[in-house]
Amino acid sequence: MSAPDIKQIISRLKELETSLYQKDFLLTWNQSAADLNAVLLTAECLEEMVRANISTRVFQAGLAVSNFRDKSTRTRFSFASASSLLGLTPHDFDESQSQVSHGETVRETANMISFLTEVIGIRDDMFIGEGHEYQQTVADAVEQGYKDGVLGQRPAIVNLQCDRDHPTQAMADLLHLQKTFGSLDALKGKKIAMTWAYSPSYGKPLSVPQGIIALMTRFGMNVVLAHPEGYDLVPEPLEAAARHAKQSKGSFSQVHSMEEAFKDADIVYPKSWAPLSVMKERTRLLRAKESAKLQSLEKEALENNAKFKSWECTEKMMKVTRGGKALYMHCLPADITDVSCKEGEVAATVFDRYRNPTYSEASHKLFVIAAMMMLTRFEKPAQVLADLHKKADRRRA
Amino acid sequence: MSAPDIKQIISRLKELETSLYQKDFLLTWNQSAADLNAVLLTAECLEEMVRANISTRVFQAGLAVSNFRDKSTRTRFSFASASSLLGLTPHDFDESQSQVSHGETVRETANMISFLTEVIGIRDDMFIGEGHEYQQTVADAVEQGYKDGVLGQRPAIVNLQCDRDHPTQAMADLLHLQKTFGSLDALKGKKIAMTWAYSPSYGKPLSVPQGIIALMTRFGMNVVLAHPEGYDLVPEPLEAAARHAKQSKGSFSQVHSMEEAFKDADIVYPKSWAPLSVMKERTRLLRAKESAKLQSLEKEALENNAKFKSWECTEKMMKVTRGGKALYMHCLPADITDVSCKEGEVAATVFDRYRNPTYSEASHKLFVIAAMMMLTRFEKPAQVLADLHKKADRRRA
Amino acid sequence: MSAPDIKQIISRLKELETSLYQKDFLLTWNQSAADLNAVLLTAECLEEMVRANISTRVFQAGLAVSNFRDKSTRTRFSFASASSLLGLTPHDFDESQSQVSHGETVRETANMISFLTEVIGIRDDMFIGEGHEYQQTVADAVEQGYKDGVLGQRPAIVNLQCDRDHPTQAMADLLHLQKTFGSLDALKGKKIAMTWAYSPSYGKPLSVPQGIIALMTRFGMNVVLAHPEGYDLVPEPLEAAARHAKQSKGSFSQVHSMEEAFKDADIVYPKSWAPLSVMKERTRLLRAKESAKLQSLEKEALENNAKFKSWECTEKMMKVTRGGKALYMHCLPADITDVSCKEGEVAATVFDRYRNPTYSEASHKLFVIAAMMMLTRFEKPAQVLADLHKKADRRRA
Repeated sequence: MSAPDIKQIISRLKELETSLYQKDFLLTWNQSAADLNAVLLTAECLEEMVRANISTRVFQAGLAVSNFRDKSTRTRFSFASASSLLGLTPHDFDESQSQVSHGETVRETANMISFLTEVIGIRDDMFIGEGHEYQQTVADAVEQGYKDGVLGQRPAIVNLQCDRDHPTQAMADLLHLQKTFGSLDALKGKKIAMTWAYSPSYGKPLSVPQGIIALMTRFGMNVVLAHPEGYDLVPEPLEAAARHAKQSKGSFSQVHSMEEAFKDADIVYPKSWAPLSVMKERTRLLRAKESAKLQSLEKEALENNAKFKSWECTEKMMKVTRGGKALYMHCLPADITDVSCKEGEVAATVFDRYRNPTYSEASHKLFVIAAMMMLTRFEKPAQVLADLHKKADRRRA
Repeated sequence: MSAPDIKQIISRLKELETSLYQKDFLLTWNQSAADLNAVLLTAECLEEMVRANISTRVFQAGLAVSNFRDKSTRTRFSFASASSLLGLTPHDFDESQSQVSHGETVRETANMISFLTEVIGIRDDMFIGEGHEYQQTVADAVEQGYKDGVLGQRPAIVNLQCDRDHPTQAMADLLHLQKTFGSLDALKGKKIAMTWAYSPSYGKPLSVPQGIIALMTRFGMNVVLAHPEGYDLVPEPLEAAARHAKQSKGSFSQVHSMEEAFKDADIVYPKSWAPLSVMKERTRLLRAKESAKLQSLEKEALENNAKFKSWECTEKMMKVTRGGKALYMHCLPADITDVSCKEGEVAATVFDRYRNPTYSEASHKLFVIAAMMMLTRFEKPAQVLADLHKKADRRRA
Repeated sequence: MSAPDIKQIISRLKELETSLYQKDFLLTWNQSAADLNAVLLTAECLEEMVRANISTRVFQAGLAVSNFRDKSTRTRFSFASASSLLGLTPHDFDESQSQVSHGETVRETANMISFLTEVIGIRDDMFIGEGHEYQQTVADAVEQGYKDGVLGQRPAIVNLQCDRDHPTQAMADLLHLQKTFGSLDALKGKKIAMTWAYSPSYGKPLSVPQGIIALMTRFGMNVVLAHPEGYDLVPEPLEAAARHAKQSKGSFSQVHSMEEAFKDADIVYPKSWAPLSVMKERTRLLRAKESAKLQSLEKEALENNAKFKSWECTEKMMKVTRGGKALYMHCLPADITDVSCKEGEVAATVFDRYRNPTYSEASHKLFVIAAMMMLTRFEKPAQVLADLHKKADRRRA
């Protein structure tokens, strides 16, 4: 696929009627098709401008606040990079000492960190039923602060992973698919297998599979979700996936066999996650600080996982995909058999063959985040990009 | 109050003979009236330039170092925002491993972190008798390093709260009053009640009430300090308050009744703090690492606090203020009864009514810090601001 | 020495055929003479441009990642300052949670943090036989990622101290010598005593003495390494020192007497370090998590150190140097007798006399790091500097 033309991208972006200005990016299924397209186009445009050594500095001052309520390397660096790319000063909010459980305090804190803040990125994926709620509470607080004149500008909340969705990952994955298959149109009718895979670890979030099924069903893909019985996901994205599949004339189905999901698949996404019931119980026990019970829960969950070691993306499993050549995807890091663990999600030879594609897949995230920043913070993002392109200041001397 | 005119602010600033260039901002009572005015005008100017989307980037490189020897959210974000606003790279100095108690080491460390540093902001409010001393030691060290040619520029030390004063808070509060009442002149003769209030917590710093009484007495206000017997403050700001009241033809008095202080007050500032004697004993015990005695001290102090639960800013208490409509102020976070605690400093309905004003009060701090940075680092700050205004580069595209 | 002329520095830099572009700076002994000269010239040029208030912002966006696997104040601030000087956003990588011991993971992590990264600075000096290896692994990973098209640019790895070398320190020291004695040529035939000195601490890295002997022998100096028997260094830099001395017509010798080393020395560098054998055993025990044995090792090592308390840079010792006026050097912080410890590396009066020179010595490090960044990231650094000089944007308004 040849490098897309910057001017062309911008003129396509200009056509879109997006609704992101002065808003947040929390759940892909609450965004319009135009919004999603705008994120893809803006991300691509920024990628091409970086490649062409054109500065995309649109801010001369301002903070981009990150709030990681769970560990992160990839997303943390993507957020810092996106901030740097646009000229914002990244600043991490370590709330270890604040009373975040109290609505009143969230409201106050959200305002206190926002007086010169353009974006607040939040990762909150540990507690089922809480991550999205928290992000929405922060969004409501800064919306109110802006309306009340307390804030001079309205920071956008960007979901860096919650209990329901992981939109910066899913959108980066979508951009990866678009680039791999040539266009969004080319994705129509393609089969993607979002399947559970065995991992010797416990408590992995559900947001990636949820984000993938809810997003890919919008583009006419045939999305198959596969997992052992009991490894259920949160209902909301499942419902969104079913609805989207109908609308887009794609399909959404669920099976309990990795092999069935892989059959003739164009794309496979084998990845471990914890059952919803385990995550709910874990949330309850963490809240109750019942550490003994948490230990038994972990033990049970790992024992249950171990029943499904055959859910591995082996060479044999890859053979059943379309022409044996499905695109392997992963949000990284993958649990690679005999490399990062004894038995894992994927065989080493499979991963090795797709290592570079998965790295490229990850490379889009910073541009997706930067795109979300631009679209939420500028009323006419296409014009802003066009001005940058015309001015053509060098990013590096 | 209509938005002040940027040109007018700058021309007023140009008239002032300030002494802040190549100096520090440690205690308001050691600054001239012109210096204080210059901080207010520069802060206002920066606020207006941000509102007008004019870039205030005056540095293309350089560090703004922060050293928080106590927890901070508001001031931390204000400092980072101020740095970003002027183009400096904020960098936090985590000294957990260095030997700060030794003068020699402070001198060396101060130089080592300053080779490209324009500002060092320090919060050191835990130990009575030490915070200001430490800041002065750092200031002396960089002054010497600059004179000796070791440092190419002389970083300004900005007091982000010490045991004696909290000048960025007090100056932000003053700017809030100026904006609320229309001018500094309008503050003459106004009664402000800086009063202790009950809180179920212990060891709260004394620097806010000290900063308020020492600063507001300079502007012809009638300042009443109220607290239960025994909740004394450090002598130096008390003496400054008395001196200033005399000079400004305002007044300064102390009472032991919240109600008496609130009587006909135009402004009330009800806030908890620990008695000086408790803070001294706490300092001693912390130094001696006597944790058992620290626990009994905390218990006693909390029990003593509990005798004064009636010191709460209730609706009834507000009624005795001028027309029942005094301006409620707080440095935040407030201990709000039935919201953040069972019994606290202020009733929920009172706080709710003044929520937005207190948020706005807090919003000034970043501009006050940025103003201190500009005035200490530029010989002709009015000219620098005039150049920015004329150039009118956009802060955001 | 009068200030060097910026144009002259740039034209000298232009003459050099350096090989640093798209490479790393890991060990001085693997760099050509032209590379070392280029670092010195570029560092000097940046120093002069800062002095002349000329902006050296060559990046409008991009990260400078630091990875401190050991404590650091001086180098940490130097790295952040160098990043700010060139316009990069410093970002610290806290890998406390990642599996760095595994090659596969290092490769992946190195790519994941590099999508918009220009430089990765790494300090890894704790484990003998591992620090340099780790840095090389990261370098290989980003080289591969760049070749594979995963990374849009190839970040340079800058060694901020490893088990073998401390090149940013040694190069800053060399620049200090050049400025003190007038030129690199003037260093020919000068005697420098790199000697062990007593310290009441344990486990100090070997990289400074190793870096000094391997580097200074390249400039025709007479380098004497002195330490008590048993306080051996790593072989590789020792061999490099011997080789360099031969090539440069200087000399390299080893003695077991501080006094002998100091005899007629022009420069003395008395500094404590741990014996190689102790560091190796410590590495082994740390890996094996044998904390009881680690404690005995520390006890034994301290007892052994205590036999050599006479290895102190006293006034008497200084008297035997050339004219009693050798230049005293130290990477700081020094263990100063009666100041930072009861008995240490240097007498207080000696240190006091050389305090400012040692501070100046330290001041060069940020410019050395910035020079390494520029030379590794730009194909024609002399042209980039010439453009900056011609444009002459102000660093501060």
